[in-house]
Amino acid sequence: MAKVKPSIPKGTRDFPPDIMIRRNFIFNIIQRTFQKYTFLPLETPSMENLSTLTGKYGEEGDQLLFRILESGDFLGEDGKKIIESGARDSESLSASLRNHIARKGLRYDLTVPFARFVVQHRNEITFPFKRYQIQPVWRADKPQKGRYREFYQCDGDVIGSKSLLNEVELIQIMDEVFSKLNLDVTIKINNRKILKGLAEYIGQEDKFTDLTVAIDKLDKTGTEKVLEELKKRGISKDSCEKVKPFLELSTNKDDNLSYLDQIMNDSEEGLKGLEEIREMFYYLDIVSLNNKLEFDPKLARGLDYYTGTIFEVKSNEMKIGSICGGGRYDDLTGVFGLNDVSGVGISFGAERIYDVMNKMDKFSTQMEENARILFVNFGKEEAKYSYQIVQRLRNQGILAELFPDSVKMKKQFAYADQRKIPYVAIIGENEMKNSTITLKNMSSGEQKELNTEDLIKELSSF
Amino acid sequence: MAKVKPSIPKGTRDFPPDIMIRRNFIFNIIQRTFQKYTFLPLETPSMENLSTLTGKYGEEGDQLLFRILESGDFLGEDGKKIIESGARDSESLSASLRNHIARKGLRYDLTVPFARFVVQHRNEITFPFKRYQIQPVWRADKPQKGRYREFYQCDGDVIGSKSLLNEVELIQIMDEVFSKLNLDVTIKINNRKILKGLAEYIGQEDKFTDLTVAIDKLDKTGTEKVLEELKKRGISKDSCEKVKPFLELSTNKDDNLSYLDQIMNDSEEGLKGLEEIREMFYYLDIVSLNNKLEFDPKLARGLDYYTGTIFEVKSNEMKIGSICGGGRYDDLTGVFGLNDVSGVGISFGAERIYDVMNKMDKFSTQMEENARILFVNFGKEEAKYSYQIVQRLRNQGILAELFPDSVKMKKQFAYADQRKIPYVAIIGENEMKNSTITLKNMSSGEQKELNTEDLIKELSSF
Repeated sequence: MAKVKPSIPKGTRDFPPDIMIRRNFIFNIIQRTFQKYTFLPLETPSMENLSTLTGKYGEEGDQLLFRILESGDFLGEDGKKIIESGARDSESLSASLRNHIARKGLRYDLTVPFARFVVQHRNEITFPFKRYQIQPVWRADKPQKGRYREFYQCDGDVIGSKSLLNEVELIQIMDEVFSKLNLDVTIKINNRKILKGLAEYIGQEDKFTDLTVAIDKLDKTGTEKVLEELKKRGISKDSCEKVKPFLELSTNKDDNLSYLDQIMNDSEEGLKGLEEIREMFYYLDIVSLNNKLEFDPKLARGLDYYTGTIFEVKSNEMKIGSICGGGRYDDLTGVFGLNDVSGVGISFGAERIYDVMNKMDKFSTQMEENARILFVNFGKEEAKYSYQIVQRLRNQGILAELFPDSVKMKKQFAYADQRKIPYVAIIGENEMKNSTITLKNMSSGEQKELNTEDLIKELSSF
Repeated sequence: MAKVKPSIPKGTRDFPPDIMIRRNFIFNIIQRTFQKYTFLPLETPSMENLSTLTGKYGEEGDQLLFRILESGDFLGEDGKKIIESGARDSESLSASLRNHIARKGLRYDLTVPFARFVVQHRNEITFPFKRYQIQPVWRADKPQKGRYREFYQCDGDVIGSKSLLNEVELIQIMDEVFSKLNLDVTIKINNRKILKGLAEYIGQEDKFTDLTVAIDKLDKTGTEKVLEELKKRGISKDSCEKVKPFLELSTNKDDNLSYLDQIMNDSEEGLKGLEEIREMFYYLDIVSLNNKLEFDPKLARGLDYYTGTIFEVKSNEMKIGSICGGGRYDDLTGVFGLNDVSGVGISFGAERIYDVMNKMDKFSTQMEENARILFVNFGKEEAKYSYQIVQRLRNQGILAELFPDSVKMKKQFAYADQRKIPYVAIIGENEMKNSTITLKNMSSGEQKELNTEDLIKELSSF
């Protein structure tokens, strides 16, 4: 047996209790909020057939798939033949063996498995289908700060409905999640059709992707760099001139709308986008949000996939990329041969949210799952007596525990200290005789004797 | 793009909402009960280094590990050399390539990763350490009814404490989980030391494993078959005669204890086992359980790993293997070079529990996460009005939704029906004028007009 200190694969993480409690805090809020808005839970298998995954994430994505080796004699006669079919370098041999010896892969995101699920079960699903899904995904990325090979995604989508009420609900969900997490954010919205309209307005309909890719960097690089990139991507000087005022738009909704009304006058797509934005605000009128909602025509989002509304959430407290994003798409399942499945969805960046909360000290120090009181163990008789009180507290919803072994007091107090348990209860011979408990407040050092009823009151009140 | 209907790998499963809601119901009860007893959450990565996993589950277990292919040029120069080092059949070539091209594997259970975690983080852990862990595991088993390649385990362990109070807590946890699940079970307990005592009593100390393996089958095969197997395993006729009355013990605690006191008179181990059982009952005295607790000296459990108390939970309602089990062990982490980490743990068989609950119709038909009321959508104006009421209900904790699109009534009612939403609210022109809601009970067909306050009362009360 190996005696070297064991380790875990690069880019993966253990989540010990203190981190788990914090992560669960985030996941629970996301889950409960989706539930409140009647999104239904879904889970798909960790492994998918490679044929489901490959070709969906571009060539680079294919390289990042974790492939699972077939069991047993994975080469087989065919594998031997591939090997024997000619002496080649290891790289090309690896490439030709890859899909033969691995036919399953770990999921790379939740979107493709969801699309696969929808196509496979289309006859059993009641549409519109509102689902949320919180599961890990895996990418064979180069591990680096903040980038992991296993991480959770938290997605919510509504498919089979074109109503903008779905967008409104998603905005409410984002707003509610972040306010419950005590984070101050800005929710930005836009509509891809408006960007289409811009492309038409500047006479560059065929350069729509170049336009969005360049504008997507506005936040990071500023107007001048975006214009430079547009020129590099073959957009004429005249067109660039027409883009400039657009890039300098504020986030005043009414100003933006009237400016866009003018320039999109001749663009059917653009006008449709503006109409959609207006309809969204028609409904949003009766919704009160805790965070700022901004209509930002310059919001582009990288993914080609989106065709209507797009969302992005930014922290107002810390400089970090978006912590939630999403949008409307016309065709979720076309790659699996089922057309016209449209929908709208968002994805919470749970790992980044964790980082923001951690850095901004947003986690409560008294975390829900931690014991509030430790009973010291002085031996069998005292333990039995104390355990009765522990049970009463537990049934009252107070997290209590009895130190299981009757070891030195010092060790038991050290345990309470390290576990950050705020109270210690001492029940010795005297306390048993008087039916009392000596309660010590671990942070103030204060100590007092009280009965069980008062103990319950004391612990419930804080 | 492939146009064939997509599928998932053999032995894996999608969990659509109706099943997820039921699974979450089970997992939530297990999780909340562990939390109540101040067990702390832990998660470990899905993939471990193969060196962590291999050699821990026997030769058969090694075959069942899912191995992850290294990325890129996984063969490399060394792989080429392995291939070129001589022409062999594909099977032996597969075997010699296996550990070269795959150096990570998916976890096979939660115990080995937990042991690895404890060793790796031993300086940061405060002992005793009570942890629960609910995560999927993967086994390349031949898929068959009730056996999956990906399934969840739900483990709870206390390590670094020899106190039998831990056993008492675990018994309470098992009892509470099953009674919250509305399942009628028997919790069986025994102590491996008593079986050691039996081996001494019959003069077969060196055949302890044979003895436990044979007795483990008592439930399935009966006394005669067990005695036959003991003979086959080289236990003398005389010894078998001495085992016979043991195999015929009832589950009367006091009778068993006095019989065992007699026969274990000369066995230090046996007497220690009896003392431990007595101490456990000393504490259990103040604990009230909902399910039957049986001291069954014939309970053996297959795993060699256990050295003290052992647990097993059986359904009283359905013939099926154990639905929860566990025990005390002396050496969790020896395989990783850290000795003397002892503990006690249990594992809930969530997949089997699901099967029992499903077959015995134990799931409530009105599942928590499902909407209670659907508001029909008659168009933009009515939708906006209705959505205000939907929001009020949601903020009152009532799961409500508005059909997002204003399509035909028939379609909206069909949606409520298929989704098993018990109430439908209709708000048309009249209702808007009168500030009322027409409420339809979907199962009785009953319809009435009421105001929002009364609607909230009606929906909160059921």
